[in-house]
Amino acid sequence: MSLHEPRQPEHKKMDHGVADLPSGPLDIYRKKASFSWKDMLLFIEGEEILVFKQHVFKTLENDPLFARQPGEDIPIGKMRELTFLRVKQLFCYDFTTKEESMANPWKIVVLSDCLGMYDWSISSKFFLNKGMFGATIANTGSERHSKYVESTEDMTTFGCFALTELTHGSNTRAIRTTATYDPSTQEFVINSPDFEAAKFWVGNLGKTATHAVVFAQLYTPDQVCHGLHSFIVPVRDPKTLLALPGVLVGDMGKKLGQNGLDNGFALFNNVRIPRENLLNKTGDVSPDGHYVTPFKDPNKRFGASLGSLSGGRVSITRMALVNLKLALVVAIRFSATRRQFGPKDAEEIPVLEYQLQQWRLIPYLAAAYALEHFTKSIFMNFVEFQIGQMMRDTGERQAEMGREIHAIGCSSKPLGSWTAQKGIQECREACGGHGYLAMNRLGDLRNDNDPNCTYEGDNNVLLQQTSNYLLSWLHAKHHYGARIESPLHTVDFLDDLHNILESKFAATTLVECMDSAVALAAYKWLVCFLLEESQKCLEQQRLSGKDKFEAHNNSQVYFCRSLAIAYIEHNCLQRFHELTTDQDTPAGLRPVLSKLCSLYGLWSLSSHMATLYQGSYFIGGKPAELVQMAILTLCSQLKDDAVTLVDVLAPPDFILNSPIGSADGQIYKNLWSAVMQGNQVLERPSWWKEFSSDKPMVGSLRPKL
Amino acid sequence: MSLHEPRQPEHKKMDHGVADLPSGPLDIYRKKASFSWKDMLLFIEGEEILVFKQHVFKTLENDPLFARQPGEDIPIGKMRELTFLRVKQLFCYDFTTKEESMANPWKIVVLSDCLGMYDWSISSKFFLNKGMFGATIANTGSERHSKYVESTEDMTTFGCFALTELTHGSNTRAIRTTATYDPSTQEFVINSPDFEAAKFWVGNLGKTATHAVVFAQLYTPDQVCHGLHSFIVPVRDPKTLLALPGVLVGDMGKKLGQNGLDNGFALFNNVRIPRENLLNKTGDVSPDGHYVTPFKDPNKRFGASLGSLSGGRVSITRMALVNLKLALVVAIRFSATRRQFGPKDAEEIPVLEYQLQQWRLIPYLAAAYALEHFTKSIFMNFVEFQIGQMMRDTGERQAEMGREIHAIGCSSKPLGSWTAQKGIQECREACGGHGYLAMNRLGDLRNDNDPNCTYEGDNNVLLQQTSNYLLSWLHAKHHYGARIESPLHTVDFLDDLHNILESKFAATTLVECMDSAVALAAYKWLVCFLLEESQKCLEQQRLSGKDKFEAHNNSQVYFCRSLAIAYIEHNCLQRFHELTTDQDTPAGLRPVLSKLCSLYGLWSLSSHMATLYQGSYFIGGKPAELVQMAILTLCSQLKDDAVTLVDVLAPPDFILNSPIGSADGQIYKNLWSAVMQGNQVLERPSWWKEFSSDKPMVGSLRPKL
Repeated sequence: MSLHEPRQPEHKKMDHGVADLPSGPLDIYRKKASFSWKDMLLFIEGEEILVFKQHVFKTLENDPLFARQPGEDIPIGKMRELTFLRVKQLFCYDFTTKEESMANPWKIVVLSDCLGMYDWSISSKFFLNKGMFGATIANTGSERHSKYVESTEDMTTFGCFALTELTHGSNTRAIRTTATYDPSTQEFVINSPDFEAAKFWVGNLGKTATHAVVFAQLYTPDQVCHGLHSFIVPVRDPKTLLALPGVLVGDMGKKLGQNGLDNGFALFNNVRIPRENLLNKTGDVSPDGHYVTPFKDPNKRFGASLGSLSGGRVSITRMALVNLKLALVVAIRFSATRRQFGPKDAEEIPVLEYQLQQWRLIPYLAAAYALEHFTKSIFMNFVEFQIGQMMRDTGERQAEMGREIHAIGCSSKPLGSWTAQKGIQECREACGGHGYLAMNRLGDLRNDNDPNCTYEGDNNVLLQQTSNYLLSWLHAKHHYGARIESPLHTVDFLDDLHNILESKFAATTLVECMDSAVALAAYKWLVCFLLEESQKCLEQQRLSGKDKFEAHNNSQVYFCRSLAIAYIEHNCLQRFHELTTDQDTPAGLRPVLSKLCSLYGLWSLSSHMATLYQGSYFIGGKPAELVQMAILTLCSQLKDDAVTLVDVLAPPDFILNSPIGSADGQIYKNLWSAVMQGNQVLERPSWWKEFSSDKPMVGSLRPKL
Repeated sequence: MSLHEPRQPEHKKMDHGVADLPSGPLDIYRKKASFSWKDMLLFIEGEEILVFKQHVFKTLENDPLFARQPGEDIPIGKMRELTFLRVKQLFCYDFTTKEESMANPWKIVVLSDCLGMYDWSISSKFFLNKGMFGATIANTGSERHSKYVESTEDMTTFGCFALTELTHGSNTRAIRTTATYDPSTQEFVINSPDFEAAKFWVGNLGKTATHAVVFAQLYTPDQVCHGLHSFIVPVRDPKTLLALPGVLVGDMGKKLGQNGLDNGFALFNNVRIPRENLLNKTGDVSPDGHYVTPFKDPNKRFGASLGSLSGGRVSITRMALVNLKLALVVAIRFSATRRQFGPKDAEEIPVLEYQLQQWRLIPYLAAAYALEHFTKSIFMNFVEFQIGQMMRDTGERQAEMGREIHAIGCSSKPLGSWTAQKGIQECREACGGHGYLAMNRLGDLRNDNDPNCTYEGDNNVLLQQTSNYLLSWLHAKHHYGARIESPLHTVDFLDDLHNILESKFAATTLVECMDSAVALAAYKWLVCFLLEESQKCLEQQRLSGKDKFEAHNNSQVYFCRSLAIAYIEHNCLQRFHELTTDQDTPAGLRPVLSKLCSLYGLWSLSSHMATLYQGSYFIGGKPAELVQMAILTLCSQLKDDAVTLVDVLAPPDFILNSPIGSADGQIYKNLWSAVMQGNQVLERPSWWKEFSSDKPMVGSLRPKL
């Protein structure tokens, strides 16, 4: 079929509520696909979720409140208003009720995916109120706080989570806001000592929140500090949205992205709240001012609380993936239709046909598929852990699972957010100038993804938690002869460290190298090697007289940091490898999934090649050459599947909101229409007289010498 | 001195018009610096430029038209108006007259630096009119066009440069706009066959331009196409700024950055222009419709015209560097004052004290110094070439210099723009949440830098020009026994390829490895290795039956692309190395410059370590270990100089416009003030009643099942 034939009428054959894709220039590639995109979609999503997603997408598309133009320029105040109104509408849609979410917690993630695909500000605003505020109270408070949770559910109130301060983010222990108990009135007095202790960066606090969960140092009347605790503090009158007395609360202004969300600050000037507003799961103050805690074994409590913190990071990993997916949909559809150059005197060819373009994009596509399975898989791990918490499981395994989930979350967030960051940038550049046009959305994706690298812990700081976890296993093995074995089995292979370190890169042919087992084996060696090297580095630092703090800091670069990254990449690859070799994975999909898995493994591994050589896992030119050739071969094998692979990931055009990323592949028609529908496109500027009749006197303002 | 002492009165001691920096938290580091920042400033800028820069900066600061607030949210229409008015004001300031620019062409670059540091949109808008439009006419037209150049100089008209079309960017030969000569009226008829051939992305065309240099396929009445030529086409009436008949011209809308600049599109519907509007340096059409060209030797003409195209790319390399500098000023000043964690029970320490933070930022600081010298140095090469052009030098050396400058420009732009892209992103993340606040400017820097990767050629596409150049030298040596020697000597070492390929990494101690000669030698080997490997890859592709086009495409990844990158990194390092070993470089500055040079070399080299191992230049664990340890040691040695090194690069606070990057280091006071001065910070939202009195009915819009 010629590319220039008129667009076919859309055959809206529906399977699982999914319409066929419109015919157009992308047909060439779609016809070459090695698998059915609807089969893949069904395999990845499952029937129930597929129907749910279609419902959410269609609902948003049909609601005029959600109407928008690609690339429109909206002032921040208006963006915040629109976001609020849309979030309010979500309460009316109530896409997943409490009961439905309990029955299938994955639905909450999927809802967040869908809303985020439309606009992350909405997702953030909605879930910061319901999740961060509501769930924090539910998980760390008690019966007496349930009214606060309930009042967020019908928007009687609107909540936020206030932890970080102007001067403290990562080092939360140094938070300076105080909560001093006054037994005479049975109240806590919340106070910010100075503006440097202002709560800062709090999502929803800028314009909307009526209540905040505030973290503060708890002081009892005997002037003893009991450390960081959280309190429910009313900040605005729900009737007027005016600040309450003693609270200076406001909006932080423009951010790089997610500008529909109102991040804010608050300064508390001896604000009094009832004693009962202390969230008292881990410690309470009696009416007469005594501190009481129900916990006996602080170690178990610590493991469990670490685990609970991981929900946010696991979610952020997923959010980053969603951004990466959207960027890939845009860039790959564009690359499949954008034609530039060609063999002499022949038609120009799609840029996706160039090896270089394949190598820039297709590994990220492989990463998206790897992360798709990974984020789901670790979420299920987290759910298992949370169920244990709800069941009040106080056993060793539960605590151990908490530590492991923590190690996973602290490294999966860096893996996800950085992969997305780099991938979106590559997609932006791979779309050339058109990728730089706001309407094509790659800028928003980059800007909205950016905070994933920072909130809930700076990526580099978080990675230290993961390497500490791994080092503690090695320590336990060396010093107590412990067997390395964890509830989720992510570290089990480390028990075989000495044998693994003896292994060498074994593939000798391109075909062998393209088996994902090869990259997986290399990763096992890599993690073991970096674990041992990190341990050695730490020891050398201590031997040279450095204290623990300094030794730790000086072992990050090239050692602990790389270790944590390799660990999580290994785990992501491991899970994907298992999926592709699982007999339950449909046979028709296994070949393409296996290729994606191998490509993801080798491509990730290629950033560690110097280390593989350094530790003599690679020797001579051959291994690197094989890895490189395998990457290029896999890219080339996958390029005909690439369009279909992004069709599986793509939301409807209305949600994607990117003219060059539309399903019909009519990049130029769509782009041109969107440009022509812009605001005052063809009008002369309002300031035309400034040009026409008021000419500058050249040099008139030049100083006379 | 305690950090919390009140700010010192500013001792405004002036040297070369440069005031002392205000006292504050940064003093701790400034006192530890190993060199005088004013000496470095004078060394880098020279007295004349230093005074010039101060003058430009102060002029902007003193003019209310240039007043602004950090992070303010301005609608696009307003941004375009403000940018126009500011550009108009630049005509009145006339910072560097035509004569001054001729006497010292570097001043134009410095003016672009200064304006860009304030806002790239202004710089772009100003120089697109004067440079791209005016200079293109001056360089490619003739006497008959000088009136057009003159009328841009006093803003009688406003110009733009219209090359790319909606469907064609990189492949300019496939441009579809036509210019058909009609001898009956002695006019050219400019026509866009369809919207896909609309001129697209043209800076200044959106709202302002009255005239465009339009590239079109020239057809003579005999229907022969003579290829791409450029024409002066009036597009708007200068009296009204309304589009002229037959011209559909408009604004492309929002871009990721530089939104003060109005990029636009134009469709020409058989627009007639006088015959004389053809820019006729390389070819003309006689009144009766015959094509004539003054050139005899197309090869020389080609070399020369390649060289002329390089000015833009050389400038873009510099623009990218300016962005990197600004980001580093912000991130390093922030890191030197932001304190987080510390040894047990001790005061928190500046994050710059952490090895990890040093490793994230200081190599980019080294890169900025390397690129500072490099961009100046290649600009001087370009000036030498341009002088030859103006002198109508038609010799072999001039043509050869054109080819070499082209190879440099095509790789320096990728080097500069990517280093800036990655560096700004690292700075953004290294400033944590505060880096995500728009007012701190890292977002704008990233967004404004982004097009540097794309315009005047996509980086990846351009790199092919450089590798082709290098391969042609190898080909000439192999086939004709030519000696490899170029006018600017960037390839001379390749003549010794065989000996260099025999060399091995020679450093055996950390101290040895920290000499920049070590990285330089490794780079020489690397370029030779990649050159030979690229050649082999191409040959293998041809032997396996691929045509030239395909063989070329399949040799990019891991070969030609890496070759071009290594070549330009080598050249940048080579020039910096020469500067640090030059006896004319002040002795007091040489130690710190040498460390920066070594760090830049080793850090850049570390991204090629796999290749160094692959080709057995590195053998065993030691070389990589030495390189890594040397990088960390150099970072640690430079961390006390880092603040002073950015003081040298920093513009005044007004220009930098980043509260956390201010020279006084009062990050929190400045940030807090800027937040409080924001628009409607403490006001309740205008839509408060939507929250207070119109509560959502939960589930009211949920479909009833």
